Amino acid sequence: MAENWIEETLYDNWGQRFRVVQELARVKSPFQDIVVFESESHGRVLLLDGVVQITERDEFVYQEMLTHVPLFTHKAPRNVLIIGAGDGGVLRRVLEHPGVEKAVMVEIDGAVIELSKQHLPSIAGDAWTNPRAEVIVGDGIDYVAKAADGSFDVIIVDSTDPIGVGEVLFTDSFYEHCARVLSAEGLIVNQCGVPFMQADELFETSERRAKYFPHVSAYVAAVPTYVGGFMTLGIASKGANPAGQDTAVVRARAEQAGILGKTQYWTPEIHTGSFNLPPYIARHLPGHKA
Amino acid sequence: MAENWIEETLYDNWGQRFRVVQELARVKSPFQDIVVFESESHGRVLLLDGVVQITERDEFVYQEMLTHVPLFTHKAPRNVLIIGAGDGGVLRRVLEHPGVEKAVMVEIDGAVIELSKQHLPSIAGDAWTNPRAEVIVGDGIDYVAKAADGSFDVIIVDSTDPIGVGEVLFTDSFYEHCARVLSAEGLIVNQCGVPFMQADELFETSERRAKYFPHVSAYVAAVPTYVGGFMTLGIASKGANPAGQDTAVVRARAEQAGILGKTQYWTPEIHTGSFNLPPYIARHLPGHKA
Repeated sequence: MAENWIEETLYDNWGQRFRVVQELARVKSPFQDIVVFESESHGRVLLLDGVVQITERDEFVYQEMLTHVPLFTHKAPRNVLIIGAGDGGVLRRVLEHPGVEKAVMVEIDGAVIELSKQHLPSIAGDAWTNPRAEVIVGDGIDYVAKAADGSFDVIIVDSTDPIGVGEVLFTDSFYEHCARVLSAEGLIVNQCGVPFMQADELFETSERRAKYFPHVSAYVAAVPTYVGGFMTLGIASKGANPAGQDTAVVRARAEQAGILGKTQYWTPEIHTGSFNLPPYIARHLPGHKA
Repeated sequence: MAENWIEETLYDNWGQRFRVVQELARVKSPFQDIVVFESESHGRVLLLDGVVQITERDEFVYQEMLTHVPLFTHKAPRNVLIIGAGDGGVLRRVLEHPGVEKAVMVEIDGAVIELSKQHLPSIAGDAWTNPRAEVIVGDGIDYVAKAADGSFDVIIVDSTDPIGVGEVLFTDSFYEHCARVLSAEGLIVNQCGVPFMQADELFETSERRAKYFPHVSAYVAAVPTYVGGFMTLGIASKGANPAGQDTAVVRARAEQAGILGKTQYWTPEIHTGSFNLPPYIARHLPGHKA
């Protein structure tokens, strides 16, 4: 058992491996293969179809950047829609914002929620029972297709890569509905992969969103277990350009929300600085100067 | 042969692995085990004692940040000392700065230089024969112990982690000599590992340097094959505080040097922004507010 390793299968010629203390769950849901295991190095780890989604030790990086950046970029987000994110970590961070009145989370795979509640309870904390939260097990595509015009201020898409069950979250139709469902100053964030390994993902997603949003941008986060350097988070806005924000304004917002000083990765400086892309990433954004 | 993988051995419970196209060299030098192989994903890869030092595909991140940040932080660097960096990539970037009159590189292991010339020629380019370069195969500790007071403006330490042959580059005695050898506004940069996995390395190195330098700081870079999120580069200065630089000044310097727009990771914005550390890293700097 000392030599029991789990190897990530995201790329077929490079990747990370974890020494396993104990496998906690291995489930084949109607949507995907789900594995939860205890690692020696990163606490508990959630894999979907062989790809690392979250680890207990480094989840704060991805969750903080996926949540606090859009919620402090939008001037006053009250209604937030989360698609995916079955571990509950984004929901927890969204609910940390006192101005948020309603957070709707739509996760297609109920088994991910159940296994996260059982094996990764620290990630969502008490978010599941928060009265401002509505958790729906269902199809995010259907949900946005039926949602009322202008009913959300921020949409956070915490999907897998555009393979398997997450693929439909990267289509024209999905982004068109998202633009309709967002309020006048609304914005959408979604993970766009690690450009060093998956450059097409950022380019193609950005091109699609540019059809429906006047401002399409991206920012970066260095997530330890999304190996390959910076991952990019795509952001598209119906209102103001999300790039070039004032750090002092972000800081004041965070202080008022009671979030300043309580994060482990996100800070006001990292918030505004994360829009400064290295040239090797920037050249994958449509229309970006080389 | 299709299933021939090389696994990095830096951490004993987590790490990366590469699918190998071809092993090019496997040498036991008097100092370390050296392996060069062709990977499917990252071009050619150099391993020392089982730890990834450089790959052809992502070397630009580390080399640009290790070189351009100190050389554009110091006001007018003319004499630069490089310790380690046997692949020649730092030397090449240092020589891109037209104001540099002399770059002395001291690498203890001549076999690393020879294997790099043979198998990784693109990394150093024509730096080896540049008349402003002096390449010494020898002990960096001895070199700084004997060097004249104030004889260098910038010292770049591109060492392995503080295990094996690189360990002596992390000692009090070494930093004391470096401080003496540097000119009045001189500064030293050295890699301080990946804090998510090796937090002690940043803390201990920073504490040691604080004995001899009035300003001790660090900046970050997301290097794809130094897995585990941001790596930190420690910087210590005898003159001005290296943090809080003006982006416009850095930009003007880079334009004048002919380097602006020619980099793949470094930009003036990333230069100044890289000193904004995530809290999970900042708390490992001595005296830093939590």
